[in-house]
Amino acid sequence: METHLNRLILLMYCPDQKGIIASVTNFIHQHNGNITYIDQYVDRSRDAFFMRMIVEGTSITNDFKTFKNSFVSELGKSFQLKCNFYQEGKIPKMGVFTSKYDHCLYDILTQQRSGKLKCKIPFIISNHIDLEGIALQFDIPFYHIPVTKQNKKVAEEKQLEILKQYEVDFIVLARYMQIVSSKLIDLYPSKIINIHHSFLPAFPGARPYHSAFNRGVKIIGATSHYVTEELDAGPIIEQDITRVSHEHEVADLIDKGQDLERIVLLRGLKLHCDRKIMVYNNKTVVFN
Amino acid sequence: METHLNRLILLMYCPDQKGIIASVTNFIHQHNGNITYIDQYVDRSRDAFFMRMIVEGTSITNDFKTFKNSFVSELGKSFQLKCNFYQEGKIPKMGVFTSKYDHCLYDILTQQRSGKLKCKIPFIISNHIDLEGIALQFDIPFYHIPVTKQNKKVAEEKQLEILKQYEVDFIVLARYMQIVSSKLIDLYPSKIINIHHSFLPAFPGARPYHSAFNRGVKIIGATSHYVTEELDAGPIIEQDITRVSHEHEVADLIDKGQDLERIVLLRGLKLHCDRKIMVYNNKTVVFN
Amino acid sequence: METHLNRLILLMYCPDQKGIIASVTNFIHQHNGNITYIDQYVDRSRDAFFMRMIVEGTSITNDFKTFKNSFVSELGKSFQLKCNFYQEGKIPKMGVFTSKYDHCLYDILTQQRSGKLKCKIPFIISNHIDLEGIALQFDIPFYHIPVTKQNKKVAEEKQLEILKQYEVDFIVLARYMQIVSSKLIDLYPSKIINIHHSFLPAFPGARPYHSAFNRGVKIIGATSHYVTEELDAGPIIEQDITRVSHEHEVADLIDKGQDLERIVLLRGLKLHCDRKIMVYNNKTVVFN
Amino acid sequence: METHLNRLILLMYCPDQKGIIASVTNFIHQHNGNITYIDQYVDRSRDAFFMRMIVEGTSITNDFKTFKNSFVSELGKSFQLKCNFYQEGKIPKMGVFTSKYDHCLYDILTQQRSGKLKCKIPFIISNHIDLEGIALQFDIPFYHIPVTKQNKKVAEEKQLEILKQYEVDFIVLARYMQIVSSKLIDLYPSKIINIHHSFLPAFPGARPYHSAFNRGVKIIGATSHYVTEELDAGPIIEQDITRVSHEHEVADLIDKGQDLERIVLLRGLKLHCDRKIMVYNNKTVVFN
Repeated sequence: METHLNRLILLMYCPDQKGIIASVTNFIHQHNGNITYIDQYVDRSRDAFFMRMIVEGTSITNDFKTFKNSFVSELGKSFQLKCNFYQEGKIPKMGVFTSKYDHCLYDILTQQRSGKLKCKIPFIISNHIDLEGIALQFDIPFYHIPVTKQNKKVAEEKQLEILKQYEVDFIVLARYMQIVSSKLIDLYPSKIINIHHSFLPAFPGARPYHSAFNRGVKIIGATSHYVTEELDAGPIIEQDITRVSHEHEVADLIDKGQDLERIVLLRGLKLHCDRKIMVYNNKTVVFN
Repeated sequence: METHLNRLILLMYCPDQKGIIASVTNFIHQHNGNITYIDQYVDRSRDAFFMRMIVEGTSITNDFKTFKNSFVSELGKSFQLKCNFYQEGKIPKMGVFTSKYDHCLYDILTQQRSGKLKCKIPFIISNHIDLEGIALQFDIPFYHIPVTKQNKKVAEEKQLEILKQYEVDFIVLARYMQIVSSKLIDLYPSKIINIHHSFLPAFPGARPYHSAFNRGVKIIGATSHYVTEELDAGPIIEQDITRVSHEHEVADLIDKGQDLERIVLLRGLKLHCDRKIMVYNNKTVVFN
Repeated sequence: METHLNRLILLMYCPDQKGIIASVTNFIHQHNGNITYIDQYVDRSRDAFFMRMIVEGTSITNDFKTFKNSFVSELGKSFQLKCNFYQEGKIPKMGVFTSKYDHCLYDILTQQRSGKLKCKIPFIISNHIDLEGIALQFDIPFYHIPVTKQNKKVAEEKQLEILKQYEVDFIVLARYMQIVSSKLIDLYPSKIINIHHSFLPAFPGARPYHSAFNRGVKIIGATSHYVTEELDAGPIIEQDITRVSHEHEVADLIDKGQDLERIVLLRGLKLHCDRKIMVYNNKTVVFN
Repeated sequence: METHLNRLILLMYCPDQKGIIASVTNFIHQHNGNITYIDQYVDRSRDAFFMRMIVEGTSITNDFKTFKNSFVSELGKSFQLKCNFYQEGKIPKMGVFTSKYDHCLYDILTQQRSGKLKCKIPFIISNHIDLEGIALQFDIPFYHIPVTKQNKKVAEEKQLEILKQYEVDFIVLARYMQIVSSKLIDLYPSKIINIHHSFLPAFPGARPYHSAFNRGVKIIGATSHYVTEELDAGPIIEQDITRVSHEHEVADLIDKGQDLERIVLLRGLKLHCDRKIMVYNNKTVVFN
């Protein structure tokens, strides 16, 4: 669970074909690398091959660029390989968007502070002032950017400016109660993580706990997912549920659900920070 | 868990009002009854009161009719009480509808045979011949009634005849792959239990495992519910889920799901047989 | 979920006997009380009766003492009733003991701050200095009382002094890594809540995650319980589990387990603060 | 999920070392094999390497013995590799031991009959006559071998004779209420699967539901495991749990538990039949 600067995480994707595993493992072996982790998945219906590896070896990590280039030139072309390389010690920067609910924000900040969520949090953006005290408490810059029908575009420009200024790698919508624009989604593809307070695809959109209460379900859920153009329809990262009964009123569902939300969002964020997710065909491949 | 002939199960429903619990418990006390179980629920948004009681006492069970009549005349009117009385030892008759899948049918028959599902099973109706061998194996009359677009009405008449002949109290659709008619639903209101192979309201209708696979959910579910006019929208009795991952193909979802289906259907059937369910406002109150 | 000053929570216990529910509900009805919640449980093997009620009615809550006295004198003796009365608005004071781990402490403080854990937190006691920053962050007095073999008695006297000074109602051991003394346990019977990082009674004592790893279990758990003389053997309040596999090393179990610990401890604390727990025969009756 | 005669399952184990994955995948590639599945696990604390592969390719499966021999001679020695080869289409034979409870037996028989449990069941041995009817119902030879203190040795000889006669590959103890002898365990190492009705290591030995009730746990469980000399201490294959409350009496725990037992036992049996388990250091590596 420690973070190693001299370990490399490789996420690969290519059309499925004979010999791909042998070729890749061979290549690394020849470069004096040691594979400490390998996991692969083949989507047979689409003949797609996915692999995640962790590689150790000073000859590789000391000259990371050379390794990367020769990997791409030797294997990339012949296998039509798409590959992402991450140095394990390089911790990503996460921009936080939030509104009025504090439970997800609190969990993000305390888990990050405890070292369990391995990212940097350069700022918090909120369309409400309510949570400024928490930002202060954790000594993180807080940007209050109200969003109204009238100022939507201007507000978004401000958001984008801040995101650029801090050079964030990805964004979390920690119960951010606004629909983000196509522009933002395009700039951060598979890099905006939202928590939806239902077991998607059940109860998309607003007020899912009310809908769940009205439908009389016996189980409620929460879903963390990447944001795409279509509302609440992006690739699902993680879901979990809890049992409810007729005795639980809407307020109880909200209460129980908020515990789910923070757990499910944090699991999603950790998977993303640990480079364990590949997105493909509006679904996630999670190497866990 | 034993079945007592001399115990009475009461399910009550009325507008919520002061003194209702005191009046009912008092009444039973005065008739030398002993309340061995009481559970109640108030739906505050609709001011509705629900109660389930189990009452012992030979003076009550020996002259059940007198007790029932005086209960209804003394309490029924003043509280606008709707009440169902069940003698615990009177075991309900369940008609079984099935098609080709054997997993739910096997579970129903083996659990009933083991005494865990407390009902009688006078017959099995199927629109396919495939499961006749299982009926034979368990020595239960099997009626093969094929259903086509052309013969739908005739087939239904045959079904109704059999249901009447055997005087069934309720019906289970054990993966019966046909939509039952309004007529049948009207004749057995809140008395037809179906198993749907998804976590409703997600993925209603046909082929839910395929839809779940395509959506990339991380959890699949099953739902047992009472059948109403609107497809897969009736009062939910019980739900459960299991985790899946990107590695699971549709065939795996079906495999894992079938384990859920049989468990969730059996739980629903047991609750119904044990008189633990009240239906209200398209939802269930489950005293468990 | 709101807190009402004019609602009364009653927790009752007595030998099981005919007419007890009728008598109590009758009594409250006669005092113009309205029972908004009632739940009862009978331990048949020991003929013990337990009941939790919530009662509204200004005539009761305005003259709480008179009601209480007449309740005790009229019903208490005839039924050998033991009864606790709580005014819903009176929020209990919780003393926090902790050591080095921050995850439970963070959850306690943020949930209390959000209004979800309904108690006051007058201070934090720790045998280590590590978490002082968090106390500071949440503006709560922090007492660093190191405990060694030599100073054990003196340290405990200091703890007791602080507990008395702040008049705490109960104590949480939020991963406090010391065994508390008989004296403290005697002073706070069924009022010290501990979180144990295993699924008790499996793996009591120290280093349960290491033991779980060595045994090769497929599920790990956490348990919140009241502290009694016998280590990790007190009445269990709440438990939960999470799946693990051979792939998880001890560090992974610790990681996954800590998420369980905070959830399970918080659920236990909420049940206690909401007066939903009765302790009896080294077990808990939880009206939830 | 289909069974292929021309697919090979390889389970490998060796000391962890550089280049092992590359060498094995290379070897298969060179023999015109296609790896359709690969999963590996490294136990870092013991430097042990485990791998499961599924290999397709007519040149391999047509001359299985040659492939096997050259695999062992080329890779086996240099890597100190221990390897098991299974042809996917060769279905194992399972001997069934049972006593009086029918729930696990019913599940085994119905799941096998449905094709979900991929094994042959040549006979049922029982120390009680009670379940003979079920054997008859499923048309399977039933051997009633009563076991008493006096006849223990003779009874065991009879059992062994039957096991040999039918050439079983492994044994399931489907709630068999006798302790099996060392001799049997030695003859079938990691080949006897038992279901224990508790969440091991909690409540080993007899009457675990009674112990669970007395301890007041909030969750009960079941464990399927390989049988070893030490009672209920063998390698755990699978576990699952269900929530209980103070309201559940011992009879309820038994009831809920039996649903767990059959699910957990069947999952264990399926994993074993599908060659997904490796046993090592009294733990299981489950490639699932």
